[in-house]
Amino acid sequence: MKRPLLSLALLLGCAAAPLTAAAQAAAPVATQPASDIAAPVLVSPSDWARMAEAADRYPMFAAERARVEREVRAAMAAGINVPQPRDLGGGVTHEQHKANYKLIAGAGALYRLTGDRVYADFARDILQEYAALYPTLGQHPAGRSPVKGRLFWQALNDSVWLVYASQGYDAIRDTLSPEDRRRIDDDVFRRMAAFLSEQNAAYFDRIHNHATWATAGVGMTGYVLRDPDLVERALRGTQRDGEAGFLRQIDLLFSPDGYYAEGPYYQRYALAPFVIFARAIEQNEPDRGIFAYRDGVLLKAVDGLLQSTYDGLILPLNDAMPDKDIRSEEIVTGVAIAYAQTGDPGLLSIARAQGRTLLSPDGLAIAQGVASGAARPFAFRSMQLRDGPDGDLGALALLRAGGTDDQMLVMKNTQQGQGHGHFDRLNWLFYDNGNAIVRDYGAARFLNVEAKNGGGYLEENETWAVQTIAHNTLAVNSRSHFDGDWRRGEEHGTTPLLFDSGNGVQIVSGRTADAYPGVILTRTLALVEHPDLAFPVAIDLMRADGSEPAMYDLPLHFNGHIITRGFAAEHAVTERPVLGDRAGYQHLWVDARSGAEDGDRSLTWLLDGRFYTYRFAASAPTQALLVESGANDPNFNLRREQALIRRMEGQPDASFVAVLEPHGAYDGSAETVTGSTSRIRSIERHRGDAAELVIVTLASGKTVALGVADEIGAGTRHIVRVGGQTYQWTGPWARFDRETTR
Amino acid sequence: MKRPLLSLALLLGCAAAPLTAAAQAAAPVATQPASDIAAPVLVSPSDWARMAEAADRYPMFAAERARVEREVRAAMAAGINVPQPRDLGGGVTHEQHKANYKLIAGAGALYRLTGDRVYADFARDILQEYAALYPTLGQHPAGRSPVKGRLFWQALNDSVWLVYASQGYDAIRDTLSPEDRRRIDDDVFRRMAAFLSEQNAAYFDRIHNHATWATAGVGMTGYVLRDPDLVERALRGTQRDGEAGFLRQIDLLFSPDGYYAEGPYYQRYALAPFVIFARAIEQNEPDRGIFAYRDGVLLKAVDGLLQSTYDGLILPLNDAMPDKDIRSEEIVTGVAIAYAQTGDPGLLSIARAQGRTLLSPDGLAIAQGVASGAARPFAFRSMQLRDGPDGDLGALALLRAGGTDDQMLVMKNTQQGQGHGHFDRLNWLFYDNGNAIVRDYGAARFLNVEAKNGGGYLEENETWAVQTIAHNTLAVNSRSHFDGDWRRGEEHGTTPLLFDSGNGVQIVSGRTADAYPGVILTRTLALVEHPDLAFPVAIDLMRADGSEPAMYDLPLHFNGHIITRGFAAEHAVTERPVLGDRAGYQHLWVDARSGAEDGDRSLTWLLDGRFYTYRFAASAPTQALLVESGANDPNFNLRREQALIRRMEGQPDASFVAVLEPHGAYDGSAETVTGSTSRIRSIERHRGDAAELVIVTLASGKTVALGVADEIGAGTRHIVRVGGQTYQWTGPWARFDRETTR
Repeated sequence: MKRPLLSLALLLGCAAAPLTAAAQAAAPVATQPASDIAAPVLVSPSDWARMAEAADRYPMFAAERARVEREVRAAMAAGINVPQPRDLGGGVTHEQHKANYKLIAGAGALYRLTGDRVYADFARDILQEYAALYPTLGQHPAGRSPVKGRLFWQALNDSVWLVYASQGYDAIRDTLSPEDRRRIDDDVFRRMAAFLSEQNAAYFDRIHNHATWATAGVGMTGYVLRDPDLVERALRGTQRDGEAGFLRQIDLLFSPDGYYAEGPYYQRYALAPFVIFARAIEQNEPDRGIFAYRDGVLLKAVDGLLQSTYDGLILPLNDAMPDKDIRSEEIVTGVAIAYAQTGDPGLLSIARAQGRTLLSPDGLAIAQGVASGAARPFAFRSMQLRDGPDGDLGALALLRAGGTDDQMLVMKNTQQGQGHGHFDRLNWLFYDNGNAIVRDYGAARFLNVEAKNGGGYLEENETWAVQTIAHNTLAVNSRSHFDGDWRRGEEHGTTPLLFDSGNGVQIVSGRTADAYPGVILTRTLALVEHPDLAFPVAIDLMRADGSEPAMYDLPLHFNGHIITRGFAAEHAVTERPVLGDRAGYQHLWVDARSGAEDGDRSLTWLLDGRFYTYRFAASAPTQALLVESGANDPNFNLRREQALIRRMEGQPDASFVAVLEPHGAYDGSAETVTGSTSRIRSIERHRGDAAELVIVTLASGKTVALGVADEIGAGTRHIVRVGGQTYQWTGPWARFDRETTR
Repeated sequence: MKRPLLSLALLLGCAAAPLTAAAQAAAPVATQPASDIAAPVLVSPSDWARMAEAADRYPMFAAERARVEREVRAAMAAGINVPQPRDLGGGVTHEQHKANYKLIAGAGALYRLTGDRVYADFARDILQEYAALYPTLGQHPAGRSPVKGRLFWQALNDSVWLVYASQGYDAIRDTLSPEDRRRIDDDVFRRMAAFLSEQNAAYFDRIHNHATWATAGVGMTGYVLRDPDLVERALRGTQRDGEAGFLRQIDLLFSPDGYYAEGPYYQRYALAPFVIFARAIEQNEPDRGIFAYRDGVLLKAVDGLLQSTYDGLILPLNDAMPDKDIRSEEIVTGVAIAYAQTGDPGLLSIARAQGRTLLSPDGLAIAQGVASGAARPFAFRSMQLRDGPDGDLGALALLRAGGTDDQMLVMKNTQQGQGHGHFDRLNWLFYDNGNAIVRDYGAARFLNVEAKNGGGYLEENETWAVQTIAHNTLAVNSRSHFDGDWRRGEEHGTTPLLFDSGNGVQIVSGRTADAYPGVILTRTLALVEHPDLAFPVAIDLMRADGSEPAMYDLPLHFNGHIITRGFAAEHAVTERPVLGDRAGYQHLWVDARSGAEDGDRSLTWLLDGRFYTYRFAASAPTQALLVESGANDPNFNLRREQALIRRMEGQPDASFVAVLEPHGAYDGSAETVTGSTSRIRSIERHRGDAAELVIVTLASGKTVALGVADEIGAGTRHIVRVGGQTYQWTGPWARFDRETTR
């Protein structure tokens, strides 16, 4: 149940005792009973009552309640600990203050769910300690954050503290004596809100994830303290002009499709304060229609993030940990809050896979939905998520075929993604059979492992993981896109050219003319189905149009064990040379290198019971190199992973074509193998009239060809002649199914 | 219900029609109605009736019935195909004949379960085709097996055909007309039995797995055809003197503990004909008490094989595929048949994990047990399985702590294991948290993958996988045990010295004096628990007593990503040299190499959320090398896996000590790390009076020390003095818990 924003008068020192008639007459607005001054506003009393009554009836909710109960009771037994701030992230005082905000939030919720005052008193007692400590604090003593916190080494964590502790405080505030309430109001929450906003105005007014947490913390505090000024500040910036603040961040940090420029891993983290504060706004100011704001972009952000996963794992684009999955707290939060708004039963199946939900009305709704069997499969679908506040700086393309464990092709036609972005324009990834087949390394980092650079990004993140050669996209003259300078990358988006489907084809195309001076890179990727093929195949056409001869390197970071090397190569079987000396090349050993050859060649590998044959050809002779990461890595910071690199030298223009074909099945338990032979006989590339043609000849004798125009003009006619055959079409692309004549 | 063996008279041409009184009077034994001549004997009619009635009631049985039904019906729709034998393993005719025996067996069972004659007729029709084809066959045309089959390239597969087809035939035999029965009896089964026994007497009389299949096939055929001569031949060899045959194979192929010399992977395959034929014997000649024979060794073999697994995977000792798990057909068979004999509810939980069972009375019993909730956890326990027919040629030691996903330490003090055995005396493996932590490479083979040497063993199996340096045991002077000659290895067992527990210690010790001339290798491994340690730790003491200075290499093939290299080393960061030129050394690249140093050093790695710190020291300065497999592997046949090698040069005697400590937890989803720091401060090795002492100093300040005598004499007193402390004990080993004095 929602409440209108309380008037200012209520905030001005109303006591818990009923007002006298004179005071009532004197007050400019209706006064309310003391309980209203302190009653919960982030979750209404009736919602709490509903949750209390239902708490044991729905397993997911009961399990979360039990989990929080165990944690809070263990902490109650251990005693309260509010230490003098001293340590960096992962250190003792940092972890304790972090634990404390979770305890305040948890204890507050447990009080409301059980009615047991020990929880409220526990939360109160912790906050009393903060009320004593916080006013004494200056800047945190450790670290070198540009914006230090007081409890924590960086203000970001102070903001997070405020977001969660305000929720717990909201739940217990009406159990306090007026003195206690005033003390905690003023010496904890009001002070913190002032610190994060007025006293760090430039920080607060940034358009950045850190500012989202800050505005969320301050805004939620504003609701709890009945301070509309704080709320206004949070929503519209310290100047209250809307040029900054939460709403402006919604405008600028998400594309119209809800895509977050830094990529899915950071979007996951950034999402939490958005949805948490939005829920608080919806609860207190429903007329704002915050979830409909900007065409519902916050809900699109939740959906888009879920779409950017495969088999529960977040696509590890840009700086990202490859093991981050949908069970992370932020996504649990987003799913619950979004479900309460949309009622999408697909979110219930996500929640079920997550295995837990929140101790909130939204969590209860999730738990009820799951328990009643209302869950439906989440609607994973092919889509393009535009990038940039106006959606015109690029796009992330997601093509899907089959079910959630079947094929997914990702094409990254996005912006740079700021400091955490990688140099990987037009990169592609391929997933199949529950696994990453053509993969993204993610970041070189062992999160929170002390011995690995304190758990932060490693040097090899810069020297390897962000570099172009670590991705499945073209590198020119042994340099990375934008010469590895992300600020230069920030100046240029990527141009999506095509996103279409039909006739058993899903096709996407993108271009960048800025990654290398004088070189235009255009790439087209397609998922193609054919009755004579066991699974859809991926067709890749990468074109470089340069002004002078160059060395073009196109890597494929494949996952699996090599079964057949379908090309002649010289092996470096004893000593292994390193590929180069910079831009990531210094981290690659060379296992094998072919001569520069024409014609189509292939590589077959096996992963998790399925075979993958990659056939490749090009417009001029190319070398095929088999490499492995891990060179120049004295601290063993890198995983050893293999890749195929196709190298063309001495040409200004290059076309690289390839077809990736999943096939067959290997059962180690039953010791059976079927379909280990590819169903494709050959591939060819032909040049035509401002167009390229890729012909795939199947073992069955049929051919399927894909024609792709150089330029995406709607009405242009293209003709490609191959031997006696003519392929002609109008528009950007076309598919041709024929019998082979050979 | 069991039946006595029928008399010879009945086999001599009794017609289906009842006998005349005269014939009855003339027959030396009571004749029986025609239906008895052909009634099932491998599974009694009443058992079939019971299964038919219960078929849908128990999910595991119903599922198996449905699976077999789908397969048989699909084959019925496709039509019968009994081709002229032509192809090798994996080829078309090979696979078809294989499919046919499964169809005969399956169709026979379905006829009995459903009463539907179409199944019986289908099996009959297939067999009619074999009756037409088989008499025309000579030796199989393909391959170079020393004992070719007729249907298959090797007689082994003909034997397997007979084992399964005889079961199907038994189920339908009483539906046949006397003419059909005689024709199939004679032209299929009698001929096949003669081929495998009389016509290949030396093969039949071997003490070998191939002969087990042959004797099983002939023996079961004997029961079905009511031919006691065939049965006798199968049980006691072609000479019927017991020097060969099934019973003799039981005597010689298993140790008294049921251990099969080639190791668990081959034991899994060898087990099937033993338990299948034993069940047939039990059904027809219960007085033989075959399952009690030799102190119940067949049932011990099933139990021992299950004990030789971790988390469902068979220990990949010797030539073995590391992905072979308990779901394989042979183990499903063994579990069902053993359960019917023992009623062990632990076998029900194995069956549940397998997810399927047999279409037999034993399978029904499994399905009933599982459905009724009678399953109990299988009693995995620490044990030693003796090796050799008399149990005196060695032992496989299995130490377990905690639950099935907790710690397991394996010590291989076994025989060579014949041609499939590896050169790995005194090898150890360590499992924890559901994973192999110190691992065994297994075999270099891609089973049934055509492109990898036709699916057979690769050259690298000989050059890498069997070699000592590929295992976690001592190699001397860059040579393998027995100089890599398995026939030399066959001449010598290994000597188990100790297998004991007590006081929070499980300890095992073994010795070989034959692996290298003039060098005695003695190793002691212990699992040690301590309240200040999160998990049990493994202590390793490897001693070499040589007659002259040597180079000793002790590898540790660890699984995980290196977190901390706790020793100084020079890195080969650009080019990587290879470790050596033979005995597997040619397949190892060197990543880093330290100088020869004293003192204790460490290596920490992370796997699946848990840290492992390995601390190591020795009796003289040693180098520490970090290596990776994959050098000299032009066909990419080897996995790239890392190892630590400790190298001591110039000493005749060497003691290597180490402690492996699991610790901590890393949760990628929640982004938390706990306990990433080892709780051990240091380890030391001291020499005493015909004994060694390993002292582990904990971070808590306490010490735990393990004293190990050089010789396992019961009453000998040992003293080791360290600084001011004295450690003394009597007997082979002792544990000391003290406070540190430093």
